[in-house]
Amino acid sequence: MMEKMKVGVIGATGMVGQNYIKLLNDHPWFEVSLVAASPASAGKPYHEAVDGRWLMKSPIPDVLRELTVADANDTKAAMDKCRLVFSAIDADKGFVRKLEEKYAQQGLAVVSNNSAHRLTPDVPMIVPEVNWQHTDLVAIQRRNRSWQGGLIAVKPNCSVQSYVTPLYALKQAGLPIETAVAATLQAVSGAGFPGPASLTMIDNVIPFIPGEEEKSEEEPLRIFGKLADGKIHPDNAMRISAHCNRVPVVDGHMACVSMKFSGQKPSVEEIIRVWQDFNGKPQELDLPSAPHPPIVIREEQDRPQPRMDRDGGNGMAVTVGRLRPCPVFDYRFVGLSHNTNRGAAGGAILTAELLKAQGYL
Amino acid sequence: MMEKMKVGVIGATGMVGQNYIKLLNDHPWFEVSLVAASPASAGKPYHEAVDGRWLMKSPIPDVLRELTVADANDTKAAMDKCRLVFSAIDADKGFVRKLEEKYAQQGLAVVSNNSAHRLTPDVPMIVPEVNWQHTDLVAIQRRNRSWQGGLIAVKPNCSVQSYVTPLYALKQAGLPIETAVAATLQAVSGAGFPGPASLTMIDNVIPFIPGEEEKSEEEPLRIFGKLADGKIHPDNAMRISAHCNRVPVVDGHMACVSMKFSGQKPSVEEIIRVWQDFNGKPQELDLPSAPHPPIVIREEQDRPQPRMDRDGGNGMAVTVGRLRPCPVFDYRFVGLSHNTNRGAAGGAILTAELLKAQGYL
Amino acid sequence: MMEKMKVGVIGATGMVGQNYIKLLNDHPWFEVSLVAASPASAGKPYHEAVDGRWLMKSPIPDVLRELTVADANDTKAAMDKCRLVFSAIDADKGFVRKLEEKYAQQGLAVVSNNSAHRLTPDVPMIVPEVNWQHTDLVAIQRRNRSWQGGLIAVKPNCSVQSYVTPLYALKQAGLPIETAVAATLQAVSGAGFPGPASLTMIDNVIPFIPGEEEKSEEEPLRIFGKLADGKIHPDNAMRISAHCNRVPVVDGHMACVSMKFSGQKPSVEEIIRVWQDFNGKPQELDLPSAPHPPIVIREEQDRPQPRMDRDGGNGMAVTVGRLRPCPVFDYRFVGLSHNTNRGAAGGAILTAELLKAQGYL
Amino acid sequence: MMEKMKVGVIGATGMVGQNYIKLLNDHPWFEVSLVAASPASAGKPYHEAVDGRWLMKSPIPDVLRELTVADANDTKAAMDKCRLVFSAIDADKGFVRKLEEKYAQQGLAVVSNNSAHRLTPDVPMIVPEVNWQHTDLVAIQRRNRSWQGGLIAVKPNCSVQSYVTPLYALKQAGLPIETAVAATLQAVSGAGFPGPASLTMIDNVIPFIPGEEEKSEEEPLRIFGKLADGKIHPDNAMRISAHCNRVPVVDGHMACVSMKFSGQKPSVEEIIRVWQDFNGKPQELDLPSAPHPPIVIREEQDRPQPRMDRDGGNGMAVTVGRLRPCPVFDYRFVGLSHNTNRGAAGGAILTAELLKAQGYL
Repeated sequence: MMEKMKVGVIGATGMVGQNYIKLLNDHPWFEVSLVAASPASAGKPYHEAVDGRWLMKSPIPDVLRELTVADANDTKAAMDKCRLVFSAIDADKGFVRKLEEKYAQQGLAVVSNNSAHRLTPDVPMIVPEVNWQHTDLVAIQRRNRSWQGGLIAVKPNCSVQSYVTPLYALKQAGLPIETAVAATLQAVSGAGFPGPASLTMIDNVIPFIPGEEEKSEEEPLRIFGKLADGKIHPDNAMRISAHCNRVPVVDGHMACVSMKFSGQKPSVEEIIRVWQDFNGKPQELDLPSAPHPPIVIREEQDRPQPRMDRDGGNGMAVTVGRLRPCPVFDYRFVGLSHNTNRGAAGGAILTAELLKAQGYL
Repeated sequence: MMEKMKVGVIGATGMVGQNYIKLLNDHPWFEVSLVAASPASAGKPYHEAVDGRWLMKSPIPDVLRELTVADANDTKAAMDKCRLVFSAIDADKGFVRKLEEKYAQQGLAVVSNNSAHRLTPDVPMIVPEVNWQHTDLVAIQRRNRSWQGGLIAVKPNCSVQSYVTPLYALKQAGLPIETAVAATLQAVSGAGFPGPASLTMIDNVIPFIPGEEEKSEEEPLRIFGKLADGKIHPDNAMRISAHCNRVPVVDGHMACVSMKFSGQKPSVEEIIRVWQDFNGKPQELDLPSAPHPPIVIREEQDRPQPRMDRDGGNGMAVTVGRLRPCPVFDYRFVGLSHNTNRGAAGGAILTAELLKAQGYL
Repeated sequence: MMEKMKVGVIGATGMVGQNYIKLLNDHPWFEVSLVAASPASAGKPYHEAVDGRWLMKSPIPDVLRELTVADANDTKAAMDKCRLVFSAIDADKGFVRKLEEKYAQQGLAVVSNNSAHRLTPDVPMIVPEVNWQHTDLVAIQRRNRSWQGGLIAVKPNCSVQSYVTPLYALKQAGLPIETAVAATLQAVSGAGFPGPASLTMIDNVIPFIPGEEEKSEEEPLRIFGKLADGKIHPDNAMRISAHCNRVPVVDGHMACVSMKFSGQKPSVEEIIRVWQDFNGKPQELDLPSAPHPPIVIREEQDRPQPRMDRDGGNGMAVTVGRLRPCPVFDYRFVGLSHNTNRGAAGGAILTAELLKAQGYL
Repeated sequence: MMEKMKVGVIGATGMVGQNYIKLLNDHPWFEVSLVAASPASAGKPYHEAVDGRWLMKSPIPDVLRELTVADANDTKAAMDKCRLVFSAIDADKGFVRKLEEKYAQQGLAVVSNNSAHRLTPDVPMIVPEVNWQHTDLVAIQRRNRSWQGGLIAVKPNCSVQSYVTPLYALKQAGLPIETAVAATLQAVSGAGFPGPASLTMIDNVIPFIPGEEEKSEEEPLRIFGKLADGKIHPDNAMRISAHCNRVPVVDGHMACVSMKFSGQKPSVEEIIRVWQDFNGKPQELDLPSAPHPPIVIREEQDRPQPRMDRDGGNGMAVTVGRLRPCPVFDYRFVGLSHNTNRGAAGGAILTAELLKAQGYL
């Protein structure tokens, strides 16, 4: 049995950090050896630092309860303790950008949930089933920045996970999408803890999430982009309009998508076949967190639904349904993915697994 | 003071029927003199017939508590008791169609919530602010069917109220819409009682409502249509794609709408001005249930919201917000209306008021 | 028409403060002439200071939108602007206690929602229907503290409103309660804004509210107490056990109460008659905010319910139902009251009305 | 490996029936060989019979999808197919009573969720951790009724599971309870599907569940009773008052319990120790569905909570918390159990496992 790689969680006391702790428990490749947080938490045993704020159903893993929380700013100390850190810090973007670079400079790999580096030209933003080849940027990044072994890779916003993979599967099958209009119905956990007040969400929906529509429209173009001349050229042939809503659902982001194909429009059966047959690099490499299949198809006319379908593929699959003609564009469908699993910690862990399988770690 | 017109409520024990009873209490023009329901309820005092199923917050009006429920099939008896009936029956469409015609044949005016007659060529489907001139069909209808004083008018589906008036205001101002993609987030009361199970709706949304998308796409074209040669010619220049979702909200249907203008696209300010200045026939005639203004504009970026805004204009206005450019079409906005008030009983009462003011009653 | 008394709202930007603003709009006796808040808000127009945090459905009253927010610490300035202040500050109790005393020393009457002075021996804690005679403490208070015209009166915790009045009505009718076990199901608005996260409350209940059980058990004894020797002697003959739960309800605190009478137990009919006939001082004096009747009795076996019954008596009544024998004690019933209306701003306004009617203002 | 016992599920298409199907999938001792339902479903493949009403998250097990649904009334046919049936029929009690007896007469063991036989003198009502010795009634039952191999055993109402085991653990440790007042907050799934309308439950709680309080008060006394002279003598020394509320929670019944001991009151530490050390017969026998430990103790002051704790012990444990003194009785605590798992299908399966381990099957 191969020895497990030691990893750290930066921002380990917040909700996304706790999700990492939960998902990395008994991970076959990775082992948490560092939990880091703000200076206020540093020095405390982990269970004390999260005291009264542990939001997972399963308890804190025994091996981590008493682990002393490190100061997230002390990147030097991290160097001795692990090879890779998952960044789940919630702070000013400028600060996060620099801190993540500092870790990389120390030779550590950084896989981040934060949006700080999503548009940095030499940082790959990865959906492992879609743009695994964008990890080639790592070599460029290391050259640009003279990093030895260090690297930064990021995952996109949780809102895009419900439609990026289904649209990519079509594109890969020679059926590229020209235009998509998506209305999302997003879970409250997407806003972290505490997120929206119950006083706001009971008997209500909120038709606005700050910054979310821009990310939902722009990030997919970069993910579908081409790597050339040392940078990603976004797929500007595609246009997305996203309207993002917050709904009183705990977990699970849903998207109602109308789409127009660039070329001739396929039949419903063709689309279904493409989705059914789709497999990405993570499935090929059989990465530990890869869902099989990556796209789950529901045939009932009232599915997918957040509570019923978010756990598909252990919360790592995208579930689609309701594929039907659109009076304005070609087709419509509904996509669903688990926002704190696939859309946050789980997606980043899958990215780290990809980087390891590709030899970057 | 003019004497009030006597009206009946057919299907008076159901949720929509109860809403009529509530809204007609102390109405300045109408007075309920007949409550009719299925044979099973006939003969009972009204309060007994609804026993344990009274869903309104205010109690049953005292004057109606002891009123004996009539058999809805006994249209002859109704003739003596009222001039107008509001039809809130929930039954097989073929049955409803015939029953409503039977009432009209007896010389009674029928204003209906049921969808049975929505596509009948000589029956007007009215949104009073939008197509008040479609009531001209009444003369044709009476001629076609040799009805003396009787008439049938219907209101459209509750889902369209959130966008039909805002789109019409633009059209009327010379800014017709060519294409609209709407995703609705609809309240559970739209399904009547009991409607969706709480077991289904807690921590969940349902991306499907049977029959709702077809109505949401087709009915507006008929409402925007032209009356010529004795029938309505739908506005086939317009195309709507509607994706209808059920969300855990008690009252208030919301729509996220992307729209493309037929001609040149106006500025945001122009659109706002058009909506602000819009007034329909009900406002001009100062009908008792007409909201002033018919379109309420919210400037906060996270409004309208169902719980906060559904009661605008006593639940009769449409509230709009978030007008902003769309990366795919010209603009996007959010519309909201109260589905059991504006979208059901209240909308039908406003239609009856219009018919009365126009001399059809 | 008498000139309205000028009043201030201290802590005017928070949720309770906003409720005051809403309820005092068009009040027949009082007129808001001062809105005060923390130094950070001071100097801004009121609508700017609450910007994005206005939680009421009706908009900010026009006359207050542009009113400049005063610094709550500047009690001197308040003196010139009003005769009475409603205190809705949310701060450290020691700080609140002193600030309220400073206002009183300036000659202003203070009616407070804060718990800081609830146990101060010479400060009356008033439920106007129950212990209106406790306002006699005002004379003692003024003598003790050499206040000229100033006074402090407080209202109890919102959780007790659902059972204090029903129990008092029985006591006043010669049927005192010896023991009561109450389990409360409390709305999220009781925690202020933001209060519990939606992530916590969706598909969940929380069996704990910090400090609430102690208040729910002790405050009623003081309210039922006797004024003698210049202070309140709590009714120590009574014992209450309260278990307080938070439930996903917007407004409306419910209590399931089992009770044992001190003496012989009355019949169900007697209890109902006592509640039906009950009228307090506010009803006798016909105070503007007094509900008629103060106790609403529902006969359906599944009422009261928060959403259906919280607005009884304009949100100022207590609604009771399900009176039935208890296998352990004598009887059980369910009480419900509106926590942000009766239980907060509305209750305090009624107290101010009582003080004015009694000549203390 | 021992051959699995063949079992049937009667009422297999309803929600409780589906839960059986889910929980029996891959059960180490039992194997579903019969799915029976009403004549309307009989003859259809199982997946068709539940069509559109499959309420579990995991799909219908492949081996059962095509199994032909039998007519529940055809007890003869069942005899050939299985040794044991789980009864999840929802019908008139008289009908259920006779049908279950007919199965037993055919030599089949019946373990039932229905309340029809709960008070039948020679039918044991079992909570395996509490009154496993009541299965001795089976011998008496067989003698009384001349049944050969057949038997009927039932499980109690789901509402009592949250407090019966904690109270029994104390009793068994020599600390019997004299009096308990319990307020329950029960999940909507407890009412089956569809259960309460979302229109009723959003922003609301219902302080009444038909028949539930009687069951919650009486069934524990029978469970704690003694078997003598061929029947159960209820523990009439104990009195319980239960107030049952429905709350907008999917799964998980909670109870707020105040309790008085018969003898001297123990310390908090003693009670905790008793609960911690408690093990019942199922744990001793290591039955496949037995939770380890049967009572989970949470120390946080705001636990147990339904969403966080219902899955404790795979949904088979009772979670307790908030043990503290009561101003009226001795102590108070909060209990929680999963109502559709422990409280329904799971509890019945554990009972069947007990019967098998005891040699009755």
